[in-house]
Parts: sequence; structure tokens; C-alpha cells
Amino acid sequence: MSRQFELNREFIEQLGNYIDQENVDAVLHLIEDLHSADIATIYTRLDNEQGKYLFSLLGDEKAADVLIELDIDDRKRVLKSLPSTMIASQLIDYMDTDDAADVLGELSREFKDELLSQMKDVEHAGDIVDLLSYDEDTAGGLMAKELIKVNENWNVVTSIREMRKQAEDVDEVYYVYVVDDYDVLKGILSLKKLLLSSRHSYIKDLLNTGIISVKTDTPSEEVSNIMHKYDLVALPVVDQIGRLAGRITIDDVVDRIREEAERDYQLIAGISEDIESYDKVWILTRARLPWLLVGLTGGIIVSQLIGVFEADLGIYPEMAFFMPLIAATAGNVGVQSSSIVVQGLANQTIQLSKTVSRLLKEFSVALLNGLTLALLMLTYNLLVDSPLALTLTVSSALFSVILFASLFGTMVPLLLDRLKIDPALATGPFITTSNDLMGLLIYFSIGRLFYGLL
Amino acid sequence: MSRQFELNREFIEQLGNYIDQENVDAVLHLIEDLHSADIATIYTRLDNEQGKYLFSLLGDEKAADVLIELDIDDRKRVLKSLPSTMIASQLIDYMDTDDAADVLGELSREFKDELLSQMKDVEHAGDIVDLLSYDEDTAGGLMAKELIKVNENWNVVTSIREMRKQAEDVDEVYYVYVVDDYDVLKGILSLKKLLLSSRHSYIKDLLNTGIISVKTDTPSEEVSNIMHKYDLVALPVVDQIGRLAGRITIDDVVDRIREEAERDYQLIAGISEDIESYDKVWILTRARLPWLLVGLTGGIIVSQLIGVFEADLGIYPEMAFFMPLIAATAGNVGVQSSSIVVQGLANQTIQLSKTVSRLLKEFSVALLNGLTLALLMLTYNLLVDSPLALTLTVSSALFSVILFASLFGTMVPLLLDRLKIDPALATGPFITTSNDLMGLLIYFSIGRLFYGLL
Repeated sequence: MSRQFELNREFIEQLGNYIDQENVDAVLHLIEDLHSADIATIYTRLDNEQGKYLFSLLGDEKAADVLIELDIDDRKRVLKSLPSTMIASQLIDYMDTDDAADVLGELSREFKDELLSQMKDVEHAGDIVDLLSYDEDTAGGLMAKELIKVNENWNVVTSIREMRKQAEDVDEVYYVYVVDDYDVLKGILSLKKLLLSSRHSYIKDLLNTGIISVKTDTPSEEVSNIMHKYDLVALPVVDQIGRLAGRITIDDVVDRIREEAERDYQLIAGISEDIESYDKVWILTRARLPWLLVGLTGGIIVSQLIGVFEADLGIYPEMAFFMPLIAATAGNVGVQSSSIVVQGLANQTIQLSKTVSRLLKEFSVALLNGLTLALLMLTYNLLVDSPLALTLTVSSALFSVILFASLFGTMVPLLLDRLKIDPALATGPFITTSNDLMGLLIYFSIGRLFYGLL
Repeated sequence: MSRQFELNREFIEQLGNYIDQENVDAVLHLIEDLHSADIATIYTRLDNEQGKYLFSLLGDEKAADVLIELDIDDRKRVLKSLPSTMIASQLIDYMDTDDAADVLGELSREFKDELLSQMKDVEHAGDIVDLLSYDEDTAGGLMAKELIKVNENWNVVTSIREMRKQAEDVDEVYYVYVVDDYDVLKGILSLKKLLLSSRHSYIKDLLNTGIISVKTDTPSEEVSNIMHKYDLVALPVVDQIGRLAGRITIDDVVDRIREEAERDYQLIAGISEDIESYDKVWILTRARLPWLLVGLTGGIIVSQLIGVFEADLGIYPEMAFFMPLIAATAGNVGVQSSSIVVQGLANQTIQLSKTVSRLLKEFSVALLNGLTLALLMLTYNLLVDSPLALTLTVSSALFSVILFASLFGTMVPLLLDRLKIDPALATGPFITTSNDLMGLLIYFSIGRLFYGLL
């Protein structure tokens, strides 16, 4: 019953053997019932020549579907190995406009123009060119042109006749869009309503006018928040004067949500490229090195800073005991603060206009946490009978460092966001390293003060 | 045209005034066109009495919708303020079975049983009781009972007549499920197909049999991966012998994906409860304190460790210069390694059976990164003319620490996952703190060795 497929090593080995023997029937038999997403996964486990052979055996429509499911590097590899006339007339022509625009958007200008000019379906090519004109981070960049629309002045019979013509191009129909004579969106009609209504009713008496739509230039983050908030599976996109331009479906948005969550997670973990655990060693190394180098540079600067205070450390070597504690707390607090801001900006619960009240709140949280930790360390140092100067230095420094790291961790992502830079860049090693440095500077300065006084 | 709503302070103030004046018409006029998700947001910004008043003005169906959109604390507050007969017959009765089961699942056993026994629609209550029997992290716990099904032996006319009866209970119809006489799922039928087919065709000639389904006990993480991989908006759930039990819609899964991503993000950032930036200061403080205390405890242990090596530090104070560098690198590498494993486990690209090959790969990455960083530090220390023993100590320790932290960061989440503990707990301050400690231990031990030799 279920076509769901579990990939295993035996399957890959068997398929590889059949491919090496060029046993077309056996290969086709193995993959005939598989979903394009599964074939794409299989492709990534084959070597270059085997993959190319497998791809050549797929029918045009299946090949187009698999191509969309591949990741960008594999897709470019496949496209390079095929003649451009075949790509244009046998692959791009079978894709939905939004997928085609995504695929073409990854290519060089020359290659893209060459493919577009070789497409047989000129109307389809025109739609793709329209979509390519939108910024990919807007509703226009997410939407597809394929949709079903009826005129509000038609009746059910006429509508169903017209829908039959339009439906060939559309895979999944969730809603029928209703427009007026000027193509301005007036409402939606659920298929359920259409199915259950009398055949002679007029559309304008059936449609639901209270609908949610976005404009072509609405940012994609807002699109995903709206679809999530209102539990929508499809969202119509209109132009500046309200004419229906396209529709966005939930699967594109789910992909976007996953990608954004993975990227934010990797940034806070100090990984600079989108990687998967099955990627090659070299790619995994390259993705991790940049942040380690940031940390290394920070560490070298810290070592210079400690050099400045070397005389103090020589006289009061016990100061060194709590350096890691101060640095680690500064780092932890900074990451906590910045992550809350990054998440709040992503799900739009933080309004930029409220920077001051945000900082005040963070200041209160830091005050409470700072007091708690400072008192705990005070108790500890009194219990283990540490020197008084050290005891006072550690607790005062801890308190100050927590305040500083909270505000710094809050301000940097807010500032980046104002400058239109991705605020998630503020999390991870950057904040940690800066806070290490500032934390130790504060620690030694306060230490000098107390050891001088007492 | 668009009902989309931007909440602002003026709106809340005006609404609050009308509520205080008990001006029913003005309140209703302000909220009449709003989506239940927006009314739920408004509720959270009102004080207790105002919220209660607003809630009392909503119609039954709207009130049920708003109740579902509230977060768990607000929902419990509302339910406490209402008589149980009203909750049962005016709210729960209007909810879809999956939402009703979620809401009832949050309540005490007694309260839940009381509400169920007071529901007027006994069939509906029975469906809810069925759903409550499933683990909430399985397909059974995610699914709703509301669906439209037709018998494979019916024709289109009969099917549409039967669907009219069933459709009243179902908000959104994406697919019609086709069953045999024993209620075993045979396939699906898109509304588009039904709409565009001759009225006298038989369902068995129209249905799509190659469908993907899950069992009631399929884990919810697998459900979300399947819906994402195959781009599904609805997924049928069957029992152990293939009978249709319910359906899961994409909006429930999107919620789950978002929640899981937020939780993993907060864990790696060292935040122990699900918080939002608009939460109260006390909640924000409480969520951040546990991990800070872990860090503090780690810092105290580190200070004891340094105490053990105090004699060395007194003789070779320059050893202190690079303590923060070693600790920070250990922490960064550990978080990188554990986050890759956590992400791989979440999106199921890591198979547990391959622990050894995973560790080997991580070892190779660590080897490359460790060599690069160690050579860079060697060059730096030679350039600034550091003592030879220190130069060798720093580079050797850095290399060893990177190897150790990588393997530790990889193994801990894999181990937690085997023990059925959430591997995401391994990220954040726990790994960082352990690695700080081990890193410095390695550093001092190697230091003792080199300073002893040279």
C-alpha cells in the first residue's frame, strides 16, 4: 500500500550492479514505483557515471521532478552533462514555473538565457521570465504562476468547464481564485464549496471574500509567518493594484522554515556553511575552520591582554584560578542574550521600535542573574577561605561581566538587523570571543582596584 | 481585501477602554473581522478581567477557535474561569477532534473526565476518547478523526451525495479517502479528479492507489520527515491491519517543526525553558539560570584544577596566557561536533548503526582542523619569540584538545540518543563546561611534560 521507501546499502549495491551491466529493464524495475525524492537520494549515493546513466533512463517528467529534488551541487553536475536543447525542451518545460525559476536562478546569465530561448512552450517561458524578475526573498520569488481562477460573474457550470482547461497545468488544487473582469482578486472558493453547490449558482454568491493575500514584494519571512499564523496551505499573491499574480503553497514555505532553522542553528554552533552529517570530510572541515580561527584570534588577543597584567598575576597567582570561570560565564550569558533576540526577530515578536524597552528588560534579567551568581561565588569563596581581595574581585567582576555580556549580546544582533545584516551572525563564536576578552579585561581591572585597596 | 491584522498599542488601548466601559457593540465591532489567531494575541495583551470579558463576548465557535490558539498557560486560566458544562457543550463540542484531544490532554484526569461526560455530542466525545489513548508523540496523537471517505464501489454521484453529509464536520478537504467494505484504505482521490470526472464513473476506476500512509504508532518525528520529504499537505493514518483511522494535516506538522527547531536552538544557546522575548523578566531569568549555574560549577571545578597546578603557574606564569585560548577552542569544537550530530539525528541523516564510521569521520575532520590550528599557533609563538617549552605546549595541547573535544562532542549526543534521552541536551553549556575542564587538564599535563623535558 505505502510507497514509502527505506534506502539501504543492499539496494544501492544491487542497483549499482545493474547499472554497471547496463541492464535497463532491471534498473527500471527497481525504481519504477519510487517517489522522485527517493530517486534523488539514490542518485547522491551513486558514482558520477552511474548517476548519469540512471538519470538518462528516467522519463522527461520524472527526470524533471528528480532534478528539482537534488541539491544545488548535484543539480549543476547533472545539467553540465546534458545538451542545452534537451534541458530546455525535456526538463524545464515539465517543471512548474516556481521550480523552473529556482533552477534557472542558480545558473549563469548566459546559460539561463540560452535555456529560456530554447524552450518550446513560449508562454511557460514567459511566466518563468516574469518570476525571475522578483527578488528570491520575496513573495514574488516564492510564488508559482500555476493556479486556477474563475470570474466572479460565471456560474458553477461555466466555472467547472473553464477549470477543466486550466487544471491540466496544476498539480494540486486547494482553492479556486475568483477575480473580476480586470483580474483583480475578489476572493476564494474552496473546491468543497464548489462540489457541494448547485450547478447554476453564481460564483459571486459562493465566494469567500475575507481572504488573506500578500503583495509580490512581501518579504518571504513575513509570508512564512502569515501562513503559519493563519494555518494556510496556499496563499494568493497580488500586485500593487490587487491583480492576481500567483500563489504560494505551504510546501515551499516548510522548506524555507527548515532551511532557516538549520542555518540559525549552525551559526550559533559556529558552523559557517550549510552542511549535512553525510558531507565529505573536506567540506565538514572547511565549514568549521572559520569560526575556530575567530576563536583562535580572540585567544591570541586575550593572551596579549593577560601579558599586560602579567605583573599582577606574578604577585597574585590565585587571580588565574577564576579566569576560565569569568570567561565562560561571559560567553554563556552573551549567547543566551543574542539567541533570544535572534529568535524574536525571526518570529517577529520583537519590534525594532522598542529597542530601549528590550534593553531595559534584558538589563533586569541580567541584574537578577548577576546578583544570584555573584552571591553564590561570594559564599563559595568565604567558605573556602579565599583572600578577601580575590573574593571581592571575583564576585564584582562576575556581576559586571554578566551585565556587560547581556547588553552587548542584545545590542549586537539588534544593530546588525538595523544595518540589514543577518542578526544570526551575532551568535556563536563572535559574541563568545568578544565577551571572553571584555570579561577578562573587566576582571583584571577590578582585581587591580581591590588588590590596590586592600 | 486582506484580513491580515497589525496589532498596535493604540488598538489595545482603545479595546481596553471599550471593555472597561462594557461597551459591547464597540468591542464586537473592533474584533468582528479578526482571525482567531489575532484575537488570541490580543487576549495575551489584556489584563485578567478584560480578557475574561472579551472571551465572554465571543460566539461559541469563535471562542473554541481562540481557545486553541492561546498558549497553554492562558488556556488553563480561561478554562478555570468558566463552568465545566459550558466548556464541554459550548467549547469542546465545537473543536475538531485533534484540537479537543490536545486541549483535554493538558488537564487533570478528573477535570478531563468531567468535561468528556458532559459533552452533548456523544459520538464526538467517543472520537476524542479514542485519540486520547495514543501517545502524543505518534501519528495517532497528531491525527484528527474528521475526514471524508467514500467506498471504492460507489460511483461519483453517490460519492458526492455521501460527501455532502460528511463535509459538514470537515473544515478543509484536500483529499477524499477511498476505503473498501472493511474500512481498509485503498487509495485517495483528489477533489480535482472528482470534480473533473464523469458523474457515473466508479470510484475504483478513479482512485490513486500509490499513496503514502503511516501507522498510528509511527513516531511524530518520522511523520514530519515523511510529509516534508514527499511534499504532502495531508497524510492518512491506518491501524495495524490497514483500516483508516484518521488523517494528519500539514499545519499540525509545521507547528511541530517550528517548536522542535526553537527548542533545539534554545538548548544550544543554554536556555532551559521555552521562552519568548515578550515573556516576563522572572520567566526569562528562571530559564537562563540553570545553565549559568552549570557553567559556574564547571568554573569552580576548573579553579580547583588550576589550584592543583598552582606551583607550575608560579614558576611559569606565561602558561596562564593561553588558558582562555585552550578553553575557548575546546568549547567551540565541542559545540560544533555535537550540533552536527543533533541535527543529523533530527533529520534522520545519521543512522545509529553507523556510530563507528561517524566517529572515524569526525576524527578526520578534527585531525585536519587540529593540525591547521596547531601550526598557526606554532608560527605565532615562534614569531613573537615565546619560550620553546610554551610554544610546544600550546600547539600540542591545542591539537590534543581539538581531537578530544570532537570525539567527546560526537559521542555524548549519540550516547544520549541510545539511552532514549533527547540528544539536544548535549549541546550548549554542558559540553562547553566539560570541554573547558578537560582542555585545561590536557594543557597543564602537556605543559608539565615539556617544561620538565626542556
